[in-house]
Amino acid sequence: MTRSSPRIEQFDVVAFDADDTLWKSEDSFQDAEARFAELVDPYAPVGIDVLDALHAVERLDIASQGYGVKAFTLSMVRAAIDMTEDAVPSAVIRELVEIGARMLIEPVHLLAHVPEVLDRVGAHARLVLITKGDLVHQTRKVTTSGLEHHFTDIEIVLEKDAGIYTKLLTRFGVAPDRFCMVGNSVRSDVLPVMAIGAHAVHVPYHLTWDLERVDDHDEDVVELDSIADLPAWLGVV
Amino acid sequence: MTRSSPRIEQFDVVAFDADDTLWKSEDSFQDAEARFAELVDPYAPVGIDVLDALHAVERLDIASQGYGVKAFTLSMVRAAIDMTEDAVPSAVIRELVEIGARMLIEPVHLLAHVPEVLDRVGAHARLVLITKGDLVHQTRKVTTSGLEHHFTDIEIVLEKDAGIYTKLLTRFGVAPDRFCMVGNSVRSDVLPVMAIGAHAVHVPYHLTWDLERVDDHDEDVVELDSIADLPAWLGVV
Repeated sequence: MTRSSPRIEQFDVVAFDADDTLWKSEDSFQDAEARFAELVDPYAPVGIDVLDALHAVERLDIASQGYGVKAFTLSMVRAAIDMTEDAVPSAVIRELVEIGARMLIEPVHLLAHVPEVLDRVGAHARLVLITKGDLVHQTRKVTTSGLEHHFTDIEIVLEKDAGIYTKLLTRFGVAPDRFCMVGNSVRSDVLPVMAIGAHAVHVPYHLTWDLERVDDHDEDVVELDSIADLPAWLGVV
Repeated sequence: MTRSSPRIEQFDVVAFDADDTLWKSEDSFQDAEARFAELVDPYAPVGIDVLDALHAVERLDIASQGYGVKAFTLSMVRAAIDMTEDAVPSAVIRELVEIGARMLIEPVHLLAHVPEVLDRVGAHARLVLITKGDLVHQTRKVTTSGLEHHFTDIEIVLEKDAGIYTKLLTRFGVAPDRFCMVGNSVRSDVLPVMAIGAHAVHVPYHLTWDLERVDDHDEDVVELDSIADLPAWLGVV
């Protein structure tokens, strides 16, 4: 099925995801994982894939710890101790905790074209930001990104599902068919938005976190190569 | 200065803090600190007060890590390793991480009289909940407390200052003189609320976290012995 692209006039609110949509995020996690593997591998039993073991701990922890750098840091510490049966030295744990502490304060790296895209789309519609993750870290990134002034609302949520999107649209006072979400995660930014009858655009990032992958779905998802293509897709001249 | 108490009819919105106002929280942190001291003291240099050292690390970490159990757990791990110069064994770190993991999933213990107070006050005014802390943990406590249905809005915020309260009152669509906040922290629940011209009631809890203490202020703060006294103070019969 092919669809003509919509016009910006169709939308009252255009919403953006943040991590790996407006700025880099997954790169830091993957760098941290590479360092985790270097640090912990010497103490792990032969034959264990330390990153597989870390991911297993992350999956177990996510229900109680949620998303974000602090949860990831605690999962790294727990995984390192568990898989080495307490053999990993405290000096290594110190390094893991410091990796997490540095991630929390590292400068925001905006993705290409983001400020001008927000300028152009924001001239025609109200913009909001909807992100998952850690309250303190996401707030720090928003306030230091130089992008905060583009958004009338900054929503940091626990999970991005249809129920949360319904609540947010009510809060914004916008009907589903007048709302469009832009983000890099099909699972979080696209499918639940389409499920409530709103619009969504997928702008993939070259890295995707394992837990954000969706294996299969039947939706006809709009995908743009780059956020730089968004104004043209919306008919913004 | 003495003041007559207000009537519930003066308020459109009555807001409640959560931790140590509706349910116990600080008790768990103090239990965790006592266990931290037992576990870490054997490895710390003679003459170090391990809890003073932990509190110093917490104060340093709060700007980047924020409030809540995950931040507290990471501070415990960092403090244990720092103050023992890596001498603390990984098995002890494992126990510290498990203390934090248990805190995240422990059942909510409501304080006495809370459900009936919410019932009675909620019959006359819109109720909202405003709490600081960790998004995933606070959300879990709210949804498992059995109290969620009392509140039209649940706001989990990074910090409780005058700016945040101003934003929230705008979101609720309530004027400051028609808003009353109820909570156990003079620093977070009372002073910033009074600073924007809204009303606040202090209901002390017998434990107060060091970082919530205020040394001195000039405000004439309304204080109730127990949340059970709130309906009468508001003239709710």
